[in-house]
Amino acid sequence: MSRFMSPCFTGLEAYTPGEQPQDQQYVKLNTNESPYPPSPAVVAAISAEEVSRLNLYPDPTGRVLKEKLAALYGVKAENIFLSNGSDDILNFAFMAFCDSERGAAFPEISYGFYPVYADLYHVDCVKIPLKEDFGVDYRDYCNIDRMVVIANPNAPTGMEISLAEIEEILKTNPNRIVLIDEAYIDFGGTSCVDLIRKYDNLLVVQTYSKSRSMAGARLGFAIADAGIIADLEKIKYSTNPYNINRLTLLAGEAAVESNTYYMENARKIAKTRENATERLRQMGFTVLDSKANFIFAKSNAVSGRVLYEELKKKGVLVRFWGKGKIEDFLRITIGTPEQMEILFAKAAEILQEQKGD
Amino acid sequence: MSRFMSPCFTGLEAYTPGEQPQDQQYVKLNTNESPYPPSPAVVAAISAEEVSRLNLYPDPTGRVLKEKLAALYGVKAENIFLSNGSDDILNFAFMAFCDSERGAAFPEISYGFYPVYADLYHVDCVKIPLKEDFGVDYRDYCNIDRMVVIANPNAPTGMEISLAEIEEILKTNPNRIVLIDEAYIDFGGTSCVDLIRKYDNLLVVQTYSKSRSMAGARLGFAIADAGIIADLEKIKYSTNPYNINRLTLLAGEAAVESNTYYMENARKIAKTRENATERLRQMGFTVLDSKANFIFAKSNAVSGRVLYEELKKKGVLVRFWGKGKIEDFLRITIGTPEQMEILFAKAAEILQEQKGD
Repeated sequence: MSRFMSPCFTGLEAYTPGEQPQDQQYVKLNTNESPYPPSPAVVAAISAEEVSRLNLYPDPTGRVLKEKLAALYGVKAENIFLSNGSDDILNFAFMAFCDSERGAAFPEISYGFYPVYADLYHVDCVKIPLKEDFGVDYRDYCNIDRMVVIANPNAPTGMEISLAEIEEILKTNPNRIVLIDEAYIDFGGTSCVDLIRKYDNLLVVQTYSKSRSMAGARLGFAIADAGIIADLEKIKYSTNPYNINRLTLLAGEAAVESNTYYMENARKIAKTRENATERLRQMGFTVLDSKANFIFAKSNAVSGRVLYEELKKKGVLVRFWGKGKIEDFLRITIGTPEQMEILFAKAAEILQEQKGD
Repeated sequence: MSRFMSPCFTGLEAYTPGEQPQDQQYVKLNTNESPYPPSPAVVAAISAEEVSRLNLYPDPTGRVLKEKLAALYGVKAENIFLSNGSDDILNFAFMAFCDSERGAAFPEISYGFYPVYADLYHVDCVKIPLKEDFGVDYRDYCNIDRMVVIANPNAPTGMEISLAEIEEILKTNPNRIVLIDEAYIDFGGTSCVDLIRKYDNLLVVQTYSKSRSMAGARLGFAIADAGIIADLEKIKYSTNPYNINRLTLLAGEAAVESNTYYMENARKIAKTRENATERLRQMGFTVLDSKANFIFAKSNAVSGRVLYEELKKKGVLVRFWGKGKIEDFLRITIGTPEQMEILFAKAAEILQEQKGD
């Protein structure tokens, strides 16, 4: 930290994203990208003609994309907020809806960025342990009088909580935002989007980075009561109004038109996930039941660290944290069936090698 | 504001961007975009093959682009910070380098976003009046013990301060950041980038939105001592690490390779600006001496409001604020010579019509 920086950031520990090797040599199962490319309509939308217009600013309101998303989700454009990846929305939510008197609560084991935002804005937060089976106990969040942030399905476990449970949290915290981070919802979970009509404190966050094969384009969106959306817009217009570029807006519009393509990919990924769960269990792994495009698994024979490091040496990248209750777990993104076969083969080799040691 | 938002934002007034009509019917001289398209190399860089890889995250470090920019500006990659438009950097700077004990100072008439950031982070700020001739008096910023933010050339005046003056501000505020916003530097101003070797408190901000014809791609960058850059990276990795998308990184790299094309465009724009200044003066306008890709002008016969509104009716958009000392001034972006001829013709019509009234 330079001598110019405000001392209020002294203790801040930034988020560490998963490795993004730029040489593409790995079977990359570490950052929950889709293994499938964007739809042909998205590729067609980013034409040379459109690139030639990059000298012009994008529409800061994102009107066309908002209208398309609103139609897809059965809401109004005023219920949609667009962002530069869903991290943008999480950032804004902690900034807008928390302060010294408005704390936050989220699961102790969840997306690693939540505690970073809490620290950044000096928000008092409670990190609530998961149940023994790694599930979220919704009762821990009822009547908590804090902004509640829950990833559903949760990361890195992939486990889901039910709509009825979410509804209880909403009902018992009527004056606080309940943020449901549905980054992974399209792979088999049940979205709570429809509850925005009933609860004006519900903020649903989704992203194009996973099921819509657009991690590289940076597009997230939120669905909520118009009051919450207006608050988020206020923060956006006070920080970076042009936060989504022209080409990403176009790609986002084309992706809505290609919804069938993406939902079919999501089904394929869910099927690959079910197969991977079974295969790894057969190999002596504990694998949590996942509704996401990743599985959370540990070998009953080899430590998480060894498995992570040996897989990397063999050209397969997975995500590993190596601490606390999840010390031996790996988060493995669901790739193509072919990529998963490589994972199974390399993991089997490692188990064999370690046995020999 | 919803009942969920922190009351600390009650008085916040967001920034109002210039109009961005999406129907493209106007001669658009209101948001300082370049009238020239990106270089052919930029168009070629965003190939269908690259769009097909949007399922993968971008490199959050932007290593390749940093190295290219470092080579272009004769600095090291550790001296470069990349951002989602230069607003991102301004936002981070107010967040990182100001707090309840570290105030800010900037010209009363300048980029309208500076006071928004100051309000957003509750930063005590002094807004220093311009001189009678609309210039910035550097002496007002010496020994001020606050973060100093000066656009050079200044917006919306287009007027410049000298390197010697900037150096005095740097010397007399050694423990505070001096942020020089060089968004418009390529149109004839003198950049202070080389001073980063001598002053570790200098933060130079530039953008691809103006001279590099990429307003629609959202790319800004900062050049400073490695200590300052590390602070900005800390904020980025605590808010939105993937804030620049894959295609914008590629376009940014190709644009560095096309530097000659862009600098030639900048020279063309400067020439058009000199001609426009002369033409408008001949028509009875007061026009400040500009080093930017816009001019700040007022008619000596017709009010700023009437001129703005009548020009809009006739299909020409310019920027108008209509308050205080600049009440009658319009900020007119320099377009192509053909676009400027339309402006002159429509302005002449309006002067004639108003005379007749």
